[in-house]
Amino acid sequence: MLIVKKFGGSSVADKERIFNVANRILEDYKAGHEVVVVLSAQGDTTDDLLEKAKEISASPSKREMDMLLSTGEQQSVALMAMALETLGYPAVSLNAFQVGMTTSSTYGNARLRNIETDRIQAELDRKNIVLITGFQGVNRYDDFTTLGRGGSDTTAVALAAALKADKCEIFTDVDGVYTADPRVVKHARKLAEITYDEMLEFASLGAQVLHNRSVEMAKKYGVELVVLSSLTRAEGTIVKEETKVEKMLVSGVTADKNVARIAVVGLKDEPGKAFELFSLLSKKNINVDIILQSIGREGTKDISFTVGRDNLKEAVQSLEEHKERLDAQRIEVDEHVAKVSLVGAGMASNSGIATKMFEALYDAGINIKMISTSEIKISLLIDEKDANEATIAIHDAFKLSGEL
Amino acid sequence: MLIVKKFGGSSVADKERIFNVANRILEDYKAGHEVVVVLSAQGDTTDDLLEKAKEISASPSKREMDMLLSTGEQQSVALMAMALETLGYPAVSLNAFQVGMTTSSTYGNARLRNIETDRIQAELDRKNIVLITGFQGVNRYDDFTTLGRGGSDTTAVALAAALKADKCEIFTDVDGVYTADPRVVKHARKLAEITYDEMLEFASLGAQVLHNRSVEMAKKYGVELVVLSSLTRAEGTIVKEETKVEKMLVSGVTADKNVARIAVVGLKDEPGKAFELFSLLSKKNINVDIILQSIGREGTKDISFTVGRDNLKEAVQSLEEHKERLDAQRIEVDEHVAKVSLVGAGMASNSGIATKMFEALYDAGINIKMISTSEIKISLLIDEKDANEATIAIHDAFKLSGEL
Repeated sequence: MLIVKKFGGSSVADKERIFNVANRILEDYKAGHEVVVVLSAQGDTTDDLLEKAKEISASPSKREMDMLLSTGEQQSVALMAMALETLGYPAVSLNAFQVGMTTSSTYGNARLRNIETDRIQAELDRKNIVLITGFQGVNRYDDFTTLGRGGSDTTAVALAAALKADKCEIFTDVDGVYTADPRVVKHARKLAEITYDEMLEFASLGAQVLHNRSVEMAKKYGVELVVLSSLTRAEGTIVKEETKVEKMLVSGVTADKNVARIAVVGLKDEPGKAFELFSLLSKKNINVDIILQSIGREGTKDISFTVGRDNLKEAVQSLEEHKERLDAQRIEVDEHVAKVSLVGAGMASNSGIATKMFEALYDAGINIKMISTSEIKISLLIDEKDANEATIAIHDAFKLSGEL
Repeated sequence: MLIVKKFGGSSVADKERIFNVANRILEDYKAGHEVVVVLSAQGDTTDDLLEKAKEISASPSKREMDMLLSTGEQQSVALMAMALETLGYPAVSLNAFQVGMTTSSTYGNARLRNIETDRIQAELDRKNIVLITGFQGVNRYDDFTTLGRGGSDTTAVALAAALKADKCEIFTDVDGVYTADPRVVKHARKLAEITYDEMLEFASLGAQVLHNRSVEMAKKYGVELVVLSSLTRAEGTIVKEETKVEKMLVSGVTADKNVARIAVVGLKDEPGKAFELFSLLSKKNINVDIILQSIGREGTKDISFTVGRDNLKEAVQSLEEHKERLDAQRIEVDEHVAKVSLVGAGMASNSGIATKMFEALYDAGINIKMISTSEIKISLLIDEKDANEATIAIHDAFKLSGEL
């Protein structure tokens, strides 16, 4: 069996953790499997390098940032190879140049294009454990690129696809995907299985287990993922096309506090106003999530929408600058909101779910500010202070802990 | 004019020094020259990485050490590119893979074989300042290699040769080559010029200005070097095939305290004994310097020789193990010795020089333990405690400070 295993930066942060991971790797190797391992940069290495760059330049060029940052993963794989050799097993580390991991040209946020498998296959044939730098690639100018946040997950999935691996295991800080954040909901239950689409909703809703791009790629190439912890022996969560559990209407509840609401009040009720408004924001690369339009007074309309809090300042500034052109009366901002979402692949065919969700919040006395739905999720915008209570209420209403 | 400039690790140790070097680079660039810069890893980076490796493994594989260490230079060149861009000038950093800097296969101590100049030339044509990782290469297995101590000097010389550069400047902690260590000899004079051969003797005699291999390569390809300081504006020392100063019999005095003497006493006076003894040491890669053989008592002979102090333990151990096979009566060790040497290209044709050197030591009351001579140097082994006094006495005797 060929297994691809990915470990994040905190899993290889120091000597003890490196040897812990080395031993996990060896379990599979000793059992006769071929093992390809993807590693991120150690613990704070990337942050330290970012700090160094910041000292030199307020806005360093992205090409040189990638040249700088890609050293972090190279250090990780070299150290892990040494650890495996110390334990008496053959290993070889490879960076993006050595693997032939080609990407698009965009520095800082490149997309993987192709992986040459010859070198990896040759090292596996020599019975080596193969350690590969995550997060990085080489573009057509023969320069290092990096894949953006969560890039090492994508590297692992792409390798699993290219090598036709039998398994792709993503080791993280948590031991799987839960029906809700276990810190908020005491009886949250770990899911045995989840579909790619559900995982995508979970990821975009703030459950930072897997990066969206890696899940999209896994879906595209049909790579079955296992999410599990490097620190425990617990079985993880399998991410796949279709889950076996037929009746699983609802998988879990997530709460995202990185949300702010902006309302543009008193727009003239004319065609093209929404387009004008949102093209302003897309020019600044600001993602808008929930959008709500309502009729205002005297032939005007109001448009409310949510953005990530880190984009709030820039969004408001841009709107204020163009207030006159937009013909808006005023811009209102609410920073203290949260988005609570219910995710489930079986949701689309069952109309009672939204009602049950609203009822749960009504019973808890929580006011709903905005509503947004998709095929497999329902999101509600509420006051930030109610976020945990709402999560628990919804989790209970749908009996997600599995208790009767 | 195409100029290759090499800066060592201490020259780029922190933000201030990086910008200091960036400004030195820009002087030439602004004057319209093409500039290729070779950098070592920042300050303590290499030591930190060695420390990390040591935590993981008592004897890490050399392949993985090179994979680990080569990240240091890559960080330096990326940071320097950022600094130049911050100052408003175009720069691009390149590592060994990008340059196509091919070496022999030996990890940890590889020899440069070939440099592909296409990418560098293309970047120069785009008016970029080109920053290249020193100390590293890529071998025929497509793996990183490192060049061993002083490797970045060699990288710079090889680049100067491959690019047919007009100038190759090696920036170090000192501002040139002196007639003696200025910390020992107050009136030591900086040499304006020195030949490759003299520089080789200086380097191997403990004056750590340039690494031997880089001087050998400069000699082979006729690359004229300039040794100068990154911290001062002082003119440096030019290293070339022939110096203009006709009458310069003697260039300088060096003292090497990294010496220990071993005496193998009471060997049977038979053919092959010296061969047997020194092949033991060469098997351990221990370099032997001065050798002296003398007739002992009753048909025996003694062989004395010097080794670097870091090799002393291993050498003695190996000799003790084979004492019986060697038929030696005993091994004697003297750790407290130093080698004082007089170097000069004009020495060979002038027989009075050795005499004058012995006279200087006699006048100073310093005892000579061993003598070794070559075409361009005379080395004397003395007590370590006399090293500084001997250096001054010889420097004075030959009026090297240039004063009458």
